[in-house]
Amino acid sequence: MSGNAVERRGTPPHFLADPLLTDLYELTMAASYHAHGMNGRATFDLFIRDLPPTRSFLIAAGLGPALDFLETFRFSSDAIDYLRSLDLFREEFLGYLSGLRFGGDVWAVPEGDLVFPAEPLVRVTAPLVEAQLVETYLLATLNFQTMVASKAARLAIACGGRPFVDFSPRRDHGPEAALGAARAAYIGGAASTSNVLAGMRFGIPVAGTMAHSYVMAHEDEEAAFRAFARDFPERSTLLIDTYDTERGARRAARVAGELAAEGISVSGVRIDSGDLGALARSVRAILDEAGLARMKIFLSGDLDEHRIAELVRDGVPADAFGVGTQLGTSADAPYLGGVYKLVSDERGPKMKTSTAKVTLPGLKQVYRVEAGGRIAYDEIALEIEGERPGRPVLRKVLERGCRVGPPEPLAAARDRARGAIASLPDALRTLDAPAPPYAVRLSPGLAALRERLAAQLVGAPASHLG
Amino acid sequence: MSGNAVERRGTPPHFLADPLLTDLYELTMAASYHAHGMNGRATFDLFIRDLPPTRSFLIAAGLGPALDFLETFRFSSDAIDYLRSLDLFREEFLGYLSGLRFGGDVWAVPEGDLVFPAEPLVRVTAPLVEAQLVETYLLATLNFQTMVASKAARLAIACGGRPFVDFSPRRDHGPEAALGAARAAYIGGAASTSNVLAGMRFGIPVAGTMAHSYVMAHEDEEAAFRAFARDFPERSTLLIDTYDTERGARRAARVAGELAAEGISVSGVRIDSGDLGALARSVRAILDEAGLARMKIFLSGDLDEHRIAELVRDGVPADAFGVGTQLGTSADAPYLGGVYKLVSDERGPKMKTSTAKVTLPGLKQVYRVEAGGRIAYDEIALEIEGERPGRPVLRKVLERGCRVGPPEPLAAARDRARGAIASLPDALRTLDAPAPPYAVRLSPGLAALRERLAAQLVGAPASHLG
Repeated sequence: MSGNAVERRGTPPHFLADPLLTDLYELTMAASYHAHGMNGRATFDLFIRDLPPTRSFLIAAGLGPALDFLETFRFSSDAIDYLRSLDLFREEFLGYLSGLRFGGDVWAVPEGDLVFPAEPLVRVTAPLVEAQLVETYLLATLNFQTMVASKAARLAIACGGRPFVDFSPRRDHGPEAALGAARAAYIGGAASTSNVLAGMRFGIPVAGTMAHSYVMAHEDEEAAFRAFARDFPERSTLLIDTYDTERGARRAARVAGELAAEGISVSGVRIDSGDLGALARSVRAILDEAGLARMKIFLSGDLDEHRIAELVRDGVPADAFGVGTQLGTSADAPYLGGVYKLVSDERGPKMKTSTAKVTLPGLKQVYRVEAGGRIAYDEIALEIEGERPGRPVLRKVLERGCRVGPPEPLAAARDRARGAIASLPDALRTLDAPAPPYAVRLSPGLAALRERLAAQLVGAPASHLG
Repeated sequence: MSGNAVERRGTPPHFLADPLLTDLYELTMAASYHAHGMNGRATFDLFIRDLPPTRSFLIAAGLGPALDFLETFRFSSDAIDYLRSLDLFREEFLGYLSGLRFGGDVWAVPEGDLVFPAEPLVRVTAPLVEAQLVETYLLATLNFQTMVASKAARLAIACGGRPFVDFSPRRDHGPEAALGAARAAYIGGAASTSNVLAGMRFGIPVAGTMAHSYVMAHEDEEAAFRAFARDFPERSTLLIDTYDTERGARRAARVAGELAAEGISVSGVRIDSGDLGALARSVRAILDEAGLARMKIFLSGDLDEHRIAELVRDGVPADAFGVGTQLGTSADAPYLGGVYKLVSDERGPKMKTSTAKVTLPGLKQVYRVEAGGRIAYDEIALEIEGERPGRPVLRKVLERGCRVGPPEPLAAARDRARGAIASLPDALRTLDAPAPPYAVRLSPGLAALRERLAAQLVGAPASHLG
């Protein structure tokens, strides 16, 4: 949109990355800070206060796109013109904005790792104005992708090793949300996606079968199956429930047998409606009787982790699952309440206490302590306390506005998530909310600082600090 | 991403508009159709089968971005290269795709109008391959924006004339979803948005106040209030709940009184936490006592239509509301199950019947019949039946791939939605699911066609057609 050349400090963003994608108040606050010379270094934590009731852990995702945004942060001349038109901002501030880049330091939980409530997911240290101006975008990106990656991890647990495919694009919250959902679902454990653009942009394997309309567009079901298998001789999954699923299975078996003579191997069948468990069993029997034991059964249609867990527990002969709506919109927990709070500025650690919403002050690290290959507890500690027992979870990812290393391949985040899920104690691997939740402790130094600041805060009722 | 120049047939899309934003099966099916010369004109209906349990009507939205996509539909050379790399498609098909434009006709419900289950929201008539290739994108866009506009309409009903602001960007499903949510919320009735990019792109009024971090970044609350009001002398709303809301209100009143002498008028205060009803009353009393009856009270914090309706019913002195998460993610109904089904091809009207999922065959129009200024019932009729009683709802919007008129201003869609909401019978204006639902009838011609096709469909159990 801008007439200016784009300055490249990072990779070109895959997601809408415009500094105007922000709440207006970030800009009015920034203008006020700028007018008063309040631009000392400040640190903000992005964290989740509470898990949704149906979640027992979160898998971090969205950091890559967030860093793309920070590295390319820049107001276009169109953006400056628009801001001028609002009659809210002084020319001095607009001039400052037009030259502004993000020059802060960022520590973050790497994508694919576990996150629990109150733990910093991203920690931003920058001049106050810059730190303020990136809040909305960071929240929008991290909240969403972490939500979907966490949902995908639950599906991975339910599938028990069977692959599942992201089928969500048509139900996601718009085209770009579909791209983000595919990315986050892959991190969380999806084997592939139906989303071709996500395949191109992120190298995620793409998968798909056929739609009912394809079957209907042919004279009959067998003609449709025959045409498709011949057109995709190495990879065809036939949708058999357009008219009657068992009859569809017999037709698919007949076509598969017939085409075997031509050297064509039909991969499998998909069932998208009806009693999936019962139909999968009868279809398996039909295929086996026809000597087609290698043909796979793919199930889809309003699936979620609970339904899949039930099918798996019942020993239903399903080889793979397609999950759409429930995965891409995380429909049982369709938002994450991540927040971004000032925890330190030039005058020292800060703490907000209002109406039961407490923040943890200071620059912090999270240590994860394992026992017997499973995670046992996390400790949030002040950086100044030095090293604490366990594995430090937050890593430095941006220094003076630039990535400290090359962007991480998505496969690395996915591997990390697989390891993270394997490290969950059994109580956290259940698909229902665990009791008690995973232990997140405060280090002695952090607990003491919190007490001290609470005592200093005039008029902060003690009940808000529990 | 492409090296080729962009051919402009329409306005540049505001949303990610790439033909690869599609499920893979659309492309494999299209390749098969292409290989077999199956590219006659076909008609697909995009419609919603069932309302979410907590909805009694829908407000159409998303058409504008969908038409932008269709008018600029074009595979980049990068896209073709990626598809080639999948080893699924023949060169002949890839060559065909690289020259492909969307040349179909589209009828649709205009944005802001009411939609009910089974009614075509969009009707696409195009060569089969083209009609197939746009399915995923149309669904992703229409499902999402219609969902949010419908949620906004419920909020408008709850607010009873008071303005409400879209505060959702940080909780929406990624940056672009925030843009779409702001657009759809505005159509459905939001007065403004905090999303600055949505303000720039769509001309939506932008609004905002300040964050708790702003208050915390100052020596004390009064210093923060004073600085902000001086920096934005014509427009400042002070956030008063960082420490203690009533004390915050007294400080805001003091600052407002003090600055009145400088000719600065503080617009109002915002309360974002606690018992909003009780706090609004005590804050109103504090402001009134200080002679500041003109200062407004703005409420936010986990609001939805039910909470707002309660506050309004209780006569709470709130002048406006900020709604975030619940609006932008439609959290109580976080997806719409829109589908896109073949209803006609060169051989005539088509109907799918499988497992209780029936489609209505043929090219159809929807007629809306009013009585006494309120809508009474809708009738879905076949186009060949000619004009029927009532107002035809679907309009031709695209002819041979081009808009039949200029893009509609968003304000027109918003006005239409306001009129549509006013035309709802009282039973549908309740915030709970109505019983019985709004009547959607089939015309005699459509009912007869459906019966005839059902009888022809071999093996379609009659029970599926009820």
